[in-house]
Amino acid sequence: MKYQIGILGFGNLGRGVSLALSQTPDLEAAAVFTRRDPATLSGKTNGIPVFGTDALDAWKEKIDCMILCGGSATDLPRQTPQYARLFNVVDSFDTHARIPEHFAAVDKASSESGHAALISAGWDPGMFSLNRLYANAILPNGRDYTFWGRGVSQGHSDALRRIRGVKNAKQYTVPVESALEAVRSGKSPELTTRQKHLRECYVVLEEGADAAAIENEIKTMPNYFADYDTTVHFIDEEELLTKHAGMAHGGFVFRSGTTSKGNNHIIEYSLKLDSNPEFTGSVLAACARAVCRLAARGEKGCRTLFDIPPALLSPKTAEELRATLL
Amino acid sequence: MKYQIGILGFGNLGRGVSLALSQTPDLEAAAVFTRRDPATLSGKTNGIPVFGTDALDAWKEKIDCMILCGGSATDLPRQTPQYARLFNVVDSFDTHARIPEHFAAVDKASSESGHAALISAGWDPGMFSLNRLYANAILPNGRDYTFWGRGVSQGHSDALRRIRGVKNAKQYTVPVESALEAVRSGKSPELTTRQKHLRECYVVLEEGADAAAIENEIKTMPNYFADYDTTVHFIDEEELLTKHAGMAHGGFVFRSGTTSKGNNHIIEYSLKLDSNPEFTGSVLAACARAVCRLAARGEKGCRTLFDIPPALLSPKTAEELRATLL
Repeated sequence: MKYQIGILGFGNLGRGVSLALSQTPDLEAAAVFTRRDPATLSGKTNGIPVFGTDALDAWKEKIDCMILCGGSATDLPRQTPQYARLFNVVDSFDTHARIPEHFAAVDKASSESGHAALISAGWDPGMFSLNRLYANAILPNGRDYTFWGRGVSQGHSDALRRIRGVKNAKQYTVPVESALEAVRSGKSPELTTRQKHLRECYVVLEEGADAAAIENEIKTMPNYFADYDTTVHFIDEEELLTKHAGMAHGGFVFRSGTTSKGNNHIIEYSLKLDSNPEFTGSVLAACARAVCRLAARGEKGCRTLFDIPPALLSPKTAEELRATLL
Repeated sequence: MKYQIGILGFGNLGRGVSLALSQTPDLEAAAVFTRRDPATLSGKTNGIPVFGTDALDAWKEKIDCMILCGGSATDLPRQTPQYARLFNVVDSFDTHARIPEHFAAVDKASSESGHAALISAGWDPGMFSLNRLYANAILPNGRDYTFWGRGVSQGHSDALRRIRGVKNAKQYTVPVESALEAVRSGKSPELTTRQKHLRECYVVLEEGADAAAIENEIKTMPNYFADYDTTVHFIDEEELLTKHAGMAHGGFVFRSGTTSKGNNHIIEYSLKLDSNPEFTGSVLAACARAVCRLAARGEKGCRTLFDIPPALLSPKTAEELRATLL
């Protein structure tokens, strides 16, 4: 009897979750729920039945965990607390600064309704966070470094597209190789924002737009680009759509710490992902397994990966895990 | 009120634990226990009082967790079950093949006595195991790779020293750089034993020993060296003691897995450690914190890192962790 998993939202992330579920022995994609007309997803969900969000109430008893695949800006702050009243839920809420308030809202809803919830699953927050926690617990006397990329930053691409005269754009965040090497070498460098990441912009102009003025506007934009070495490439839309449509991403988490005079240790965790949404969807699927198990034990309220015994993420038994992976 | 931690055994690992405890805000090294004459450790324990193992019974109520710092070959299989009858315990048992039976023995003793225990903490088993588990849970369709080194292997050094005519020796396990690069590139290569690690031997001969014969004996030794590209360097004992006395080690854990046709992901975790026993001691200290907390909740029986919610390893509160590391 497989755990029945619901997928709410079927953009890139929802699709990634459906692929991840298809690789597991114990989780079944029971249904996709969409705010769009379900007919628009017809034939696109690998045979998973599709329903409108108006059908959600009727699925209350049939779904062991609902994976919420909306965006962090406006969808999840509303959806996760709302649906935690009906279901055990998992989301990938990734606005770091707002995690405490999102946690509080989801914890209240899920505790009151008697459901289990897990928020902020993915790679950052998610696997990167776990590695920061473990490394800090082991090496209290040290320094953390997180680098992102090479990969497209949605927020920075949006900032480019808001500029008057820009028709379309993509922005790659690129870690500075020499900074990675300095950290890896154990030098524990102090790194400024500029020293850690480069920003590479690929921009399609509206007809008649002033390229030089736009390049200057980009490079001096506060918060987004002014503090970085930024390069701007003007290309045509066909090139943008063909060469810059990929969803590869990744990054690095380091902790460099000392345990005694002269003895330094470097912990490095890195991800190189061909598809950001498929990898994030795979983390969400593993977290849904853990949530199903917590709920089966009668646990309720909100969790993050920090609270989850790692074995709960795996389909293997504790005995198998100790014998094969420990 | 700090948790009171006992250290049983004060070789390199026990010393590493004492350094780790001195860096924590919430754990206090209460006492060192030794099978030797306690006077032999006088002045060598950074002010931590030293007692013989005959005093252990009297400390039953005063120690929140005992960290067992003996060896896996003969000490821990006996000591951990024995002392789990008196104390909450943590060990670094690292004979992978015998973990299931060690777990069973410690689980029985600690369950019967009402104590909490955690075995096989360190980096492999330990942090490497955790990374294998997380990566397998996220990417079920993939391949694992573990590389060790560059670092001294105790078992292989011992094998060298057992050869007639060898006075002293150290053996370094060295990962093959091209194999690391092939894995990192996403090629998911099938690698033979020989393709993954080199073995570098530094050997001091007894007077009159036959170097050529010994080199041949080393390179053809089954299990230890025959399946590897092995280099043998004959040096004098002074060079061995001065240039090869370091305790640096490290390694790499990879999982390379696919989520859909054409989309591959690489998860890499690596450690570069100036001191193997100081790093292992730091993992043991963090695990002792988790065990103290489990015991305070009334939990009993044996655990591994697979069973420990990561937050229990950190001195920070759940709120602090979510606000600062998630």
